[in-house]
Amino acid sequence: MTGKGLTHIDEHGEARMVDVSAKEVTERVAVAGASVWMKPETLRMVIEGTAKKGDVLGTAKLAGIMAAKRTHELIPLCHPLQLSHIDVTLQPVEEASRIDVRATCRLAGRTGVEMEALTAASVACLTLYDMVKAVDRGVVIGDIRLVEKSGGKSGHYTAPEA
Amino acid sequence: MTGKGLTHIDEHGEARMVDVSAKEVTERVAVAGASVWMKPETLRMVIEGTAKKGDVLGTAKLAGIMAAKRTHELIPLCHPLQLSHIDVTLQPVEEASRIDVRATCRLAGRTGVEMEALTAASVACLTLYDMVKAVDRGVVIGDIRLVEKSGGKSGHYTAPEA
Amino acid sequence: MTGKGLTHIDEHGEARMVDVSAKEVTERVAVAGASVWMKPETLRMVIEGTAKKGDVLGTAKLAGIMAAKRTHELIPLCHPLQLSHIDVTLQPVEEASRIDVRATCRLAGRTGVEMEALTAASVACLTLYDMVKAVDRGVVIGDIRLVEKSGGKSGHYTAPEA
Amino acid sequence: MTGKGLTHIDEHGEARMVDVSAKEVTERVAVAGASVWMKPETLRMVIEGTAKKGDVLGTAKLAGIMAAKRTHELIPLCHPLQLSHIDVTLQPVEEASRIDVRATCRLAGRTGVEMEALTAASVACLTLYDMVKAVDRGVVIGDIRLVEKSGGKSGHYTAPEA
Amino acid sequence: MTGKGLTHIDEHGEARMVDVSAKEVTERVAVAGASVWMKPETLRMVIEGTAKKGDVLGTAKLAGIMAAKRTHELIPLCHPLQLSHIDVTLQPVEEASRIDVRATCRLAGRTGVEMEALTAASVACLTLYDMVKAVDRGVVIGDIRLVEKSGGKSGHYTAPEA
Amino acid sequence: MTGKGLTHIDEHGEARMVDVSAKEVTERVAVAGASVWMKPETLRMVIEGTAKKGDVLGTAKLAGIMAAKRTHELIPLCHPLQLSHIDVTLQPVEEASRIDVRATCRLAGRTGVEMEALTAASVACLTLYDMVKAVDRGVVIGDIRLVEKSGGKSGHYTAPEA
Repeated sequence: MTGKGLTHIDEHGEARMVDVSAKEVTERVAVAGASVWMKPETLRMVIEGTAKKGDVLGTAKLAGIMAAKRTHELIPLCHPLQLSHIDVTLQPVEEASRIDVRATCRLAGRTGVEMEALTAASVACLTLYDMVKAVDRGVVIGDIRLVEKSGGKSGHYTAPEA
Repeated sequence: MTGKGLTHIDEHGEARMVDVSAKEVTERVAVAGASVWMKPETLRMVIEGTAKKGDVLGTAKLAGIMAAKRTHELIPLCHPLQLSHIDVTLQPVEEASRIDVRATCRLAGRTGVEMEALTAASVACLTLYDMVKAVDRGVVIGDIRLVEKSGGKSGHYTAPEA
Repeated sequence: MTGKGLTHIDEHGEARMVDVSAKEVTERVAVAGASVWMKPETLRMVIEGTAKKGDVLGTAKLAGIMAAKRTHELIPLCHPLQLSHIDVTLQPVEEASRIDVRATCRLAGRTGVEMEALTAASVACLTLYDMVKAVDRGVVIGDIRLVEKSGGKSGHYTAPEA
Repeated sequence: MTGKGLTHIDEHGEARMVDVSAKEVTERVAVAGASVWMKPETLRMVIEGTAKKGDVLGTAKLAGIMAAKRTHELIPLCHPLQLSHIDVTLQPVEEASRIDVRATCRLAGRTGVEMEALTAASVACLTLYDMVKAVDRGVVIGDIRLVEKSGGKSGHYTAPEA
Repeated sequence: MTGKGLTHIDEHGEARMVDVSAKEVTERVAVAGASVWMKPETLRMVIEGTAKKGDVLGTAKLAGIMAAKRTHELIPLCHPLQLSHIDVTLQPVEEASRIDVRATCRLAGRTGVEMEALTAASVACLTLYDMVKAVDRGVVIGDIRLVEKSGGKSGHYTAPEA
Repeated sequence: MTGKGLTHIDEHGEARMVDVSAKEVTERVAVAGASVWMKPETLRMVIEGTAKKGDVLGTAKLAGIMAAKRTHELIPLCHPLQLSHIDVTLQPVEEASRIDVRATCRLAGRTGVEMEALTAASVACLTLYDMVKAVDRGVVIGDIRLVEKSGGKSGHYTAPEA
């Protein structure tokens, strides 16, 4: 990490937005992952609800997609972006009593979209939480991380665990 | 869990907002916790930056506070609320190479504020992530959970691990 | 209409927000209706998609609920409100080749909620439009109107055609 | 309609955002129309108010313009766009006791702007409704439709009735 | 100022939101003032435009009203509020070549509304600026201040110069 | 000013958004200035707080940056933009008992960014006001103006007083 500092902190230690004017416009993609752990009976309720009408997972998916578009309003130093694609998938993993969330964002632009993908995944998880909290107070959201990233000068990145 | 179903899913399996018209106005408080794991050298950069000007932690704190106010815009079935207090604290835990976030929301109203606290904690974590991502791609956000809750008919709750 | 003028226009003809400080806090409910006409084969696609996963109608429903919460941001002279309940239902009417939307909003407050119900219904319709526009350019949204209203000093109202 | 399905529904029946990464950047224009029917005496009030200060129509116009900029926040699967132009006009039609609204949006981009034009027209109508509802409960909004569209691979489109 | 510190800074020097849970619900009113100076010929254009259709001043007025509703989104430590009334007036003062703006906000609540009034006045001024900037680059906005305030434990306040 | 009129007012005197479709994409920069006057003891509190943790000035800075991104939501006829850089600095001027704010916005686009810089400066000032208002009711915000502008067909501009 020699020679690199926190890009959002200037020489006086103050928060700052990175100037992306001079960055190249390239196709950028980021994939974020996250998981929501709940009781087995809660997960079964979600899955059965899903089997019938798909609404718990469907609602979380839409909330994640909509949140990605508002990332720059939530994260103070993020740039406003014109995402060309957002996708959020939710996969129940019964043996681990959890739901895995994966969010993908895409942009032809000057800055990476990992914060957009991470925000989409986080809000999808929070929405799941909201929909089951009345029957399960012990829900935990975690493992929110960058899974894959491409575009920009730093090249392709795949998380070790992915 | 006998006799209880997912409150946000109606008898036809469709997503719905809970009607809180008949709920009592009581003083409601919720505390949410979350953690952000990063490399030791990243954490040191944050702490040193903090020692000087406090900006990484200060920015995350403000982002969390501001996000709590927008919870109902992000989580589809949450009610708009007039929070009377929001607090977010961030505590570096050097031996575990992580930062612990705690968010507290307070309201005199008809509905609980755990989603507001969880949203504040989540967005504070995402902001931390954003500010260190240039030097550390392996940051992970997790352990987002309800720590404590009071007010409303379900009484006082403290998470087992708290 | 003797003795009554446009409440949003003051004596100088300028737009103004109605002052609701002195109005009574009562339980207020408003129901708005709207319809979306499309080709029979488009409607069949929506219904079949619905039968499987419910997403076209489910997405429109959520969009309507979320829009109700933002009415005061869209309609310049509307007051910010803390709605206690929002519901949006969508009913395909195959023989008329249309989908009927009904939105209900509820509030214990000083001002009526018909604009919130009308906004929810309108945005649900726009979302339906968005999801079928690639296969049907002739979709028409209409019949957006107040169906029922109660609470406040003007008493209960039911639209003649309801 | 052979070979075409609902673009917002994927093969599993779930809602999805269309990926526009590969679409061409072209000049895109969309014109939407809508109408608001009211009692003759309500319309006269609006027109007379207009003659003096223009505020009912002026307020609706601005609300429509501002709403177009927020379309992607309201319609879940719409992309955020940088509209280069938005125009909304309102034309009282006394013989039919209605006001005709027309909204035009323009963009150099990868996706059509009909949802932006339709949203602008709808919110202009809702604002008209809001401003006259105290004197006329029977107002109806309708005939919200695409009038004209150009740009993109599907070429120029003019609605039959336009 | 003995015994009083900055209420938004806690004992550790960090920004914080004031907890208003224990404050009394009273009728609160705040009036803010502001002025926009421009060239005499610019002011004349505004006034003449106003004489015809009222749009420069009308647009600024609406922008101010709408901005008041979003104060808590803009000012990090402001509480979300349900304003019961917002009014913005604009008065051209030809002899001083300026426009005076006055914004009034009203609330039955636990916290003062001066930030809402100041935000309304500021955004009305910025909107005036936007509408004349093409013909006058030397416009200056100033004298943004609290004019009058009542409600809450600090009693009635009138600015010395008011 | 011969041959030039208010660009936001059309031939009928109605408000309108300027169509920027045909404008060239150039690198555009705008710098806005503003000042906040307060009592000497208030300023000292801010500076001392700053010396310790930087939160009053840090909070105002972030609020300014975040507000710039929302300019098009606040100013009715502004275009949505993808700013590539926003910076806000705050400089206490003890001898004049004021804080000077300077906001810089940057964009590769079709329209100038002075409104974004002016909005950032204004909201930073309002945030300063909010944080000291409990100890100083006589705070005044002023001297909000364009300091410098480049890009676009009108060339480089520097305010006389800058």
